[in-house]
Amino acid sequence: MNTPSPQQTDVAAPRPAFARWLSTTNDVTRRFLSAGRIPGLINIAGGLPAPELYPAAEVAALARRAIEEHPQETLGYGPIEGLPELRDALAARFTTAELRLGRENVLVTTSGMQGLDLIGKALLEEGGLIAGQFPTYLGALDAWRPRRPAYRNLLLEEPKFDAFAAMAGAQFVYTVPNFSNPSGRLVGLPMRQALVDAAHRSGVWLVEDDPYGALHYDGAPLPRLLDLSARCRPGRSYDGPILYMGTLSKEIAPGLRIGWVIGAPEMIEALTMAKQGSDMCTSGVTQRIALAALESGLVERLRPAIVDLYRERRDALCAALADHLAEWFEWEVPVGGMFVWAVARDPALDTDRLFQAGLEAGVCVTPSSVFDPAGRNRRALRLNFTLNPPDRLAEGVRRLAAAVRVMAKKD
Amino acid sequence: MNTPSPQQTDVAAPRPAFARWLSTTNDVTRRFLSAGRIPGLINIAGGLPAPELYPAAEVAALARRAIEEHPQETLGYGPIEGLPELRDALAARFTTAELRLGRENVLVTTSGMQGLDLIGKALLEEGGLIAGQFPTYLGALDAWRPRRPAYRNLLLEEPKFDAFAAMAGAQFVYTVPNFSNPSGRLVGLPMRQALVDAAHRSGVWLVEDDPYGALHYDGAPLPRLLDLSARCRPGRSYDGPILYMGTLSKEIAPGLRIGWVIGAPEMIEALTMAKQGSDMCTSGVTQRIALAALESGLVERLRPAIVDLYRERRDALCAALADHLAEWFEWEVPVGGMFVWAVARDPALDTDRLFQAGLEAGVCVTPSSVFDPAGRNRRALRLNFTLNPPDRLAEGVRRLAAAVRVMAKKD
Repeated sequence: MNTPSPQQTDVAAPRPAFARWLSTTNDVTRRFLSAGRIPGLINIAGGLPAPELYPAAEVAALARRAIEEHPQETLGYGPIEGLPELRDALAARFTTAELRLGRENVLVTTSGMQGLDLIGKALLEEGGLIAGQFPTYLGALDAWRPRRPAYRNLLLEEPKFDAFAAMAGAQFVYTVPNFSNPSGRLVGLPMRQALVDAAHRSGVWLVEDDPYGALHYDGAPLPRLLDLSARCRPGRSYDGPILYMGTLSKEIAPGLRIGWVIGAPEMIEALTMAKQGSDMCTSGVTQRIALAALESGLVERLRPAIVDLYRERRDALCAALADHLAEWFEWEVPVGGMFVWAVARDPALDTDRLFQAGLEAGVCVTPSSVFDPAGRNRRALRLNFTLNPPDRLAEGVRRLAAAVRVMAKKD
Repeated sequence: MNTPSPQQTDVAAPRPAFARWLSTTNDVTRRFLSAGRIPGLINIAGGLPAPELYPAAEVAALARRAIEEHPQETLGYGPIEGLPELRDALAARFTTAELRLGRENVLVTTSGMQGLDLIGKALLEEGGLIAGQFPTYLGALDAWRPRRPAYRNLLLEEPKFDAFAAMAGAQFVYTVPNFSNPSGRLVGLPMRQALVDAAHRSGVWLVEDDPYGALHYDGAPLPRLLDLSARCRPGRSYDGPILYMGTLSKEIAPGLRIGWVIGAPEMIEALTMAKQGSDMCTSGVTQRIALAALESGLVERLRPAIVDLYRERRDALCAALADHLAEWFEWEVPVGGMFVWAVARDPALDTDRLFQAGLEAGVCVTPSSVFDPAGRNRRALRLNFTLNPPDRLAEGVRRLAAAVRVMAKKD
């Protein structure tokens, strides 16, 4: 049998086709990653934390102790839903006088991204309808693409926006109320209440994705949709329509890949069945590190330094924009999160082209088209302010302004 | 807005339906987990490694050093495909004189289970056809259930089995050539060659899932399908139809959740797009631990103790079966892996009922129905020999024999 078989050449044998959704996806993330390797490039495209904030020494010590003291839990298979103690700790973290949560309300996920994937698996048939804020998080579009869903835009800023009508027929509603990616916008309290009321009336699941909830630079946080929903149904364990998603990626480090979904027990059950066939369970090593980080108060101790650093960087980015790009773009100063959303004053300015011109000028930004399921929005840019120190942000904006000028001259 | 809104009761509001596949799934895994909490129960149902073999002290030290020495790689976002050094180490591990592998042939997955999920995402439309060995791994059925695929049974043991015909029209073929779960069977060399030839001729993707490849108790391992495929096309980097899947769950510990897929670069690209929307990237912490375990030789050092312990336990289980159950069941002694597949001599013996009777007698086994996509095979049991020491295995078999006798009397 060492002799090659007579059918050794399969050059002509056609392979089965890849699933159709793969032809509708894009390589934006890949392009960003390869752009990151260009020497000297200033990357204000991604959504990356400041790596100097990673508490490496503390996490290293927590990791060693977690494995030594809990060898079975860290190294064995664990429950699909997550380690019971971590689920309890997360339930406790979000419990309030009005919101009663138990372990049965919590699913640990392998990153926030996995939570989006599982929600799609549990709720979407091919072509199912999702109502959402657009532009929206690229990763959410990626997670749901294999189901080739239909999208309906929630026009939250329209004066006559009717939340109930906007939810009709949707499998779920996707929102990022705190400092939405990419727009950086905060959904105000009246709209939060309107969304929650409409979800209660319609029964539609309402996803509250909150990766940036801890990154609040001015004033006090607004109530979560989850909290507002609990107020409508006082005195009982949570069984409402909100699916609250969080992650430790911005509070400790993305490399742990630890997120969670909080919701009604029936939904946690469905997501658990979806997780069973996705990765069986999240690593006990990273779950135990997360639990220790929550229990030891590490997360709370880190927060002030993170918030202070990011506030300073937000201010630096916005100052540089005012100095160099106000002629071409307008933006709101975000009160939290990681991004400034800059919209071109001239509707003819094509930010897909500006993305390319920026690369040639030594700066990488994110064009708005990638946040639009239809890919048509080409008038805005998402600019990240968390990764780079102020002087790099200023230099990045100068390069971007130079690229705009070159583009304007060509036109 | 602290006043509850008028629509506070949503008791009557119907929720959108869950995806249809959820009604076709089962809670077998959940039942096993809860059975595991019954005091005194002997669990020979699962596929769990012997926890006393977990190298906790070594992994704890590797984890601490990994995070201290590589804070960015462990704690930041990493490339979707996996850390380049880990991909290189895995490529090197499987490279031979005939099989040329580079980084572009390797995807790191968050457990072997994720590899199965990604293959489904990349290749299956709703209702797509999978050809596979049945009975088959329950986790594979779980992974593909959201696409509600059709299955065709590869009857490898039939004298007139025609591999080429059996593959026609399938999106992919799923095989576990080494000590298949649940049957424990080894696919022999002529059939391996026949499968590889048919995949080359037909172009159909051929999945070689190999979680147990290192657990070989008698004689030498047979060549992998991947190796046989490379022999057909000497002198070039691998671009054939085999998708080889592995995991560190049986070689180090399941809690790391580190697996891999090796295949043609075009397939690795497609799986990478699927992984982008599944969990973005695998934890840098667990990837760096895995890399250190491979580079330091820990995996190789652990193997003899694992193989010796499991061989002894296999022999103990088979001896107990011969002593207590030969009247009712027949089985082959497996030359590797984790399972004995015991088939009832009497076709009327219902192993779903025996599963329940076993629980009452204090032993948990796996009935064959869960490994059959149609749930119809109720004549066999899967018995695990890796988790329990010999005396517990013997006691478990005695309890099982008692349960069979009680059932036989009732009938």
